[in-house]
Amino acid sequence: MNVGMGSNLYLGLVHHPIYDKRKEVVASAITNFDIHDIARCAKTFGIGGFFIITPLESQVLLADRIIRHWVEGVGSVYNPTRKESLSLVRVSRTIDEAAREISDLLQTKVKRVATAASPHPRNIDFEFFRKVLKDSDSPFLILFGTGWGLTQEVKDGSDYVLAPIEGKGYNHLSVRSAVAIILDRLLGDRNSRY
Amino acid sequence: MNVGMGSNLYLGLVHHPIYDKRKEVVASAITNFDIHDIARCAKTFGIGGFFIITPLESQVLLADRIIRHWVEGVGSVYNPTRKESLSLVRVSRTIDEAAREISDLLQTKVKRVATAASPHPRNIDFEFFRKVLKDSDSPFLILFGTGWGLTQEVKDGSDYVLAPIEGKGYNHLSVRSAVAIILDRLLGDRNSRY
Repeated sequence: MNVGMGSNLYLGLVHHPIYDKRKEVVASAITNFDIHDIARCAKTFGIGGFFIITPLESQVLLADRIIRHWVEGVGSVYNPTRKESLSLVRVSRTIDEAAREISDLLQTKVKRVATAASPHPRNIDFEFFRKVLKDSDSPFLILFGTGWGLTQEVKDGSDYVLAPIEGKGYNHLSVRSAVAIILDRLLGDRNSRY
Repeated sequence: MNVGMGSNLYLGLVHHPIYDKRKEVVASAITNFDIHDIARCAKTFGIGGFFIITPLESQVLLADRIIRHWVEGVGSVYNPTRKESLSLVRVSRTIDEAAREISDLLQTKVKRVATAASPHPRNIDFEFFRKVLKDSDSPFLILFGTGWGLTQEVKDGSDYVLAPIEGKGYNHLSVRSAVAIILDRLLGDRNSRY
């Protein structure tokens, strides 16, 4: 694995637009465990940044407060390892805003990668995307849906759609577990481990 | 991958004996997200069962109440996929009790596998343990520590100690993320995926 691989990879946790249980498009609430678990995974795998995407002003403020508590506040003294991981977290109102922030920062267009628990006609598998990551200088923003997942429109409008993690007839992982597995498949040190 | 592989594998989430921040041996509190996330991973990968291990009577009652809510109560109607995953969960007072329950059920001694975020002299890697799992008829109980991890005694007394998941200078994954990654490394469908 190249040193620095993963640093051109960004994560977006999408709270809107996503589906709810009845397949209606909604905005979900922020979950504290999502922020911590995914930030810790992002830090473990050397990810460039992690965007919490929500259009709701109250949720933007809540996310900012959680991040500040751990990065600058009492939490940063109580548990410095959380400061390291939460430092990777940003808040954006929309997927476009997150993508623009990355593109502006790196002065090159970011490519969008959707994830889903069910198959999509344009699915690429993990082996293929590992190669894309390795060979490309582009930044990539991997989008994860909360609730019942990213809308069809978001998937159709992405540059790539990653294959689902296939279970034994059960595909109901938490988004936290899905992020962990996907990052390990893409960036985990597979030579020395297995 | 063999059909049914994983069903001889059991998970134990240990709330005692574990270390706290100051490396004192304590009993940690149950975390609702641990139960759900790990049960959903267990169901995804076809695991035989998932033991919540806690000696505290109040915590045993709490875990039982959570499980019953989703398996028999209102939750089983609201979200049937949680019923499927939570049906895999049992509660035990000690690691020994969980091991005995598996050994009694399968009429053969269960082997214990410890996990940790730092190296151990007897570490085995994931490739090796995949082979062990494939070639063996034994049941295995993989132990995950909450808090600051399993005690040295638990690790030393286990039949195997799995290698840590190596991050880029940061090894502070949540136990939920560690379980997801370890199950995928051991049981994930690697032929078609990557």
